Amino acid sequence: MVQSPMPDIATRVYDHNFKLDPIVRSLLDTDVYKLLMLQTIWKERPDVPVTFSLINRSKSVRLADEIDEKDLRAQLDHARSIGFTKKELIWLTGNTFYGRERLFTKEFIEWLRHYRLPEYRLRVEDGQYLIDFEGDWAETTLWEIPVLSIISELRSRASMHGVGRFELDVLYARAKAKLWEKVLRLDQLPDLKIADFGTRRRHSFLWQRWCIAAMKEGLGSKFTGTSNVLMAMDLDLDAIGTNAHELPMVEAALADGDEALMKSPYRVLKHWSRTYDGNLLIVLPDTYGTTRFLENAPDWVADWSGFRIDSKEPLAGGEELIKWWSERGKDPREKLLIFSDGLTVDTIEQVYHQFNGRVRLSFGWGTHLTNDFSDCATEYNSQLKAISLVCKVTHANGKPTVKLSDNFDKATGPAAEIARYRSIFGGENMEQLDVLV
Amino acid sequence: MVQSPMPDIATRVYDHNFKLDPIVRSLLDTDVYKLLMLQTIWKERPDVPVTFSLINRSKSVRLADEIDEKDLRAQLDHARSIGFTKKELIWLTGNTFYGRERLFTKEFIEWLRHYRLPEYRLRVEDGQYLIDFEGDWAETTLWEIPVLSIISELRSRASMHGVGRFELDVLYARAKAKLWEKVLRLDQLPDLKIADFGTRRRHSFLWQRWCIAAMKEGLGSKFTGTSNVLMAMDLDLDAIGTNAHELPMVEAALADGDEALMKSPYRVLKHWSRTYDGNLLIVLPDTYGTTRFLENAPDWVADWSGFRIDSKEPLAGGEELIKWWSERGKDPREKLLIFSDGLTVDTIEQVYHQFNGRVRLSFGWGTHLTNDFSDCATEYNSQLKAISLVCKVTHANGKPTVKLSDNFDKATGPAAEIARYRSIFGGENMEQLDVLV
Repeated sequence: MVQSPMPDIATRVYDHNFKLDPIVRSLLDTDVYKLLMLQTIWKERPDVPVTFSLINRSKSVRLADEIDEKDLRAQLDHARSIGFTKKELIWLTGNTFYGRERLFTKEFIEWLRHYRLPEYRLRVEDGQYLIDFEGDWAETTLWEIPVLSIISELRSRASMHGVGRFELDVLYARAKAKLWEKVLRLDQLPDLKIADFGTRRRHSFLWQRWCIAAMKEGLGSKFTGTSNVLMAMDLDLDAIGTNAHELPMVEAALADGDEALMKSPYRVLKHWSRTYDGNLLIVLPDTYGTTRFLENAPDWVADWSGFRIDSKEPLAGGEELIKWWSERGKDPREKLLIFSDGLTVDTIEQVYHQFNGRVRLSFGWGTHLTNDFSDCATEYNSQLKAISLVCKVTHANGKPTVKLSDNFDKATGPAAEIARYRSIFGGENMEQLDVLV
Repeated sequence: MVQSPMPDIATRVYDHNFKLDPIVRSLLDTDVYKLLMLQTIWKERPDVPVTFSLINRSKSVRLADEIDEKDLRAQLDHARSIGFTKKELIWLTGNTFYGRERLFTKEFIEWLRHYRLPEYRLRVEDGQYLIDFEGDWAETTLWEIPVLSIISELRSRASMHGVGRFELDVLYARAKAKLWEKVLRLDQLPDLKIADFGTRRRHSFLWQRWCIAAMKEGLGSKFTGTSNVLMAMDLDLDAIGTNAHELPMVEAALADGDEALMKSPYRVLKHWSRTYDGNLLIVLPDTYGTTRFLENAPDWVADWSGFRIDSKEPLAGGEELIKWWSERGKDPREKLLIFSDGLTVDTIEQVYHQFNGRVRLSFGWGTHLTNDFSDCATEYNSQLKAISLVCKVTHANGKPTVKLSDNFDKATGPAAEIARYRSIFGGENMEQLDVLV
């Protein structure tokens, strides 16, 4: 007879009385760029009143029908109960980020020591959860990642409700085999540099950790790290990240007059450079259109280390930057281009073959790394498909925020405000790309 | 922080002091046909002195280099320390086999109660383990399956020595995903009947159990059971099996003169029918060539329920049987054909499409079910490939045994004896097929 292992009675009893399996168990379970941005916000614009809102771009998925409100509130409430631990703050203080020591100041760390996620407002409308986070910018901004990863994982859990033990085994076996095939394909690219950017839309915390382990194992030094601070700490990886649209969006909302509005994206860069002493100089140029951003940019922008191409079609976006640097007398081979929008192995390969050797290349791989379960279930399960869920700053200083982006259909904000922004920043070179994830 | 589960200290300490992870933990961890044959042997020919010998047909694999002799002896010795437990004997007595109650007599069960596997003789020659089991037929026959599954699993373990925790995870994820694809393909065959025959060459005990669970889950009633008695008992499945070459081989060795030799295969059937009261009437016709067996068969052989096609090319073998039954006024649609030699999904599909509806069909799936790890390791690993290892009766009553089979190259025995047998049974209709597994 095969002997079963001795059951651990205490564990079994505990499991039977399990009330909550927390999704977010640490405030470090977030993207490092949120902490990097937070330090700038905390220094430059801490008290701007803002609203962050959850936006489900995949309207056909009725989240309120899939996820129980009680479960959602329990997870959000649990996240609010967590503070940064001593160990975490010591690590944040002592760790090097991008090779630089003490990126976070003592004063900022002290402020984090007492930080808690603030209240949220949640209601259901037309099958969707409307969740708002209102308050001072420095207080609210950290909600973005936990609220997204909580909803993403609650949705995964709901999708697997009632699925048998064996089917789950096949599901994860297939997902592992599938991811490993992707890793093997990527490993064919000799100069690849790629990081995990998949926290916000991950299938689950544990699955993201497996994905990171697979990348580390299969890609070696081609895998440069993870955007997730907790996983970087626990798995001895570099925490990788840049900055996001909320910085120029809030700065634009604060702008007094059209001239100030047009100059606001460059003011954001000034703040950033001041916070980080001329380090981490990566530009995210697409908030109000990459082309106009480059046209209007002061000369010193070409001195920055690189750009992150987000909403623009990646091949066109990369070519535009290379041309722009060349015209300004910069050698693109010394500049960094980071791609991170809806990447698949196919698009990574395309971009790599287009630009490898012509520029320093880096990829931030998200949803198709940490939440690609299509064809993995034994029976078709639409709930396993990742959705396009975001948490964006929607108001600042009493005014609605606006994002135009390089993709015409990705513009956000009230129609009248979008029109005003377009009249200032122009609408050319905006393609209508399908919004995937 | 993610909390690790509370470690079970007792288990950890036990694991650290682990001496042997036994491969065979029950005498029921064998093929049911061994027990069925044993009862006939025990009734008809218990005291015939025989030798069973391990034969590695995959000469290029030097087992003695791959597997440590100490480990092998420890496993064999452990198997010798096991007896049938009360629960197992109660189950053997009370279970129905092929719908028939009390297939095993009270006297036979009493004899099993005190049974132990007998001594073995082990030496190393030219990189191979030569293992012999000498003694009374009824005592030695049960060694066949444990010695094969022990070596098979020791080889798997050796192949994974030093492989990291993560690679192992990918290995099994891929193997699971791969098997599940096979199951999905097989499920496309609406009238399929298939059983697990994979004990002897399994990757491991636990993996065989997973394979059986996958077949049960994916194929439902198309999965008819397993040859493994222990797994049938534990997983509430039917134990499936027929009979094997050792019966006609020993009977042939006992034959006195050419006439008696030629009739010996049919004498075996008489013994079998007597033991099982006209039940379980499946013929294995290829020991000395199927064609000659059918030509010389007494009329009553056509009344038996079916045939197991083993060494003959399956499509030709099936057609030959259908023709033979038809010529003898039997309706092949009431007869059973069992295929079990080196089946892959491809060959199962071929055989199914050739014969479905023309005959009752059943498949016994072995190595490609329970030990197909090719392309599953993250780095190429030749040791993960199953080998053609058998444990055959080589001597009976002081004479060497002979098998001709339908595959010329699969003939076993001393050359002079093979020649003598061929002169009596004929050598026609023997193809040279590649010996795979």
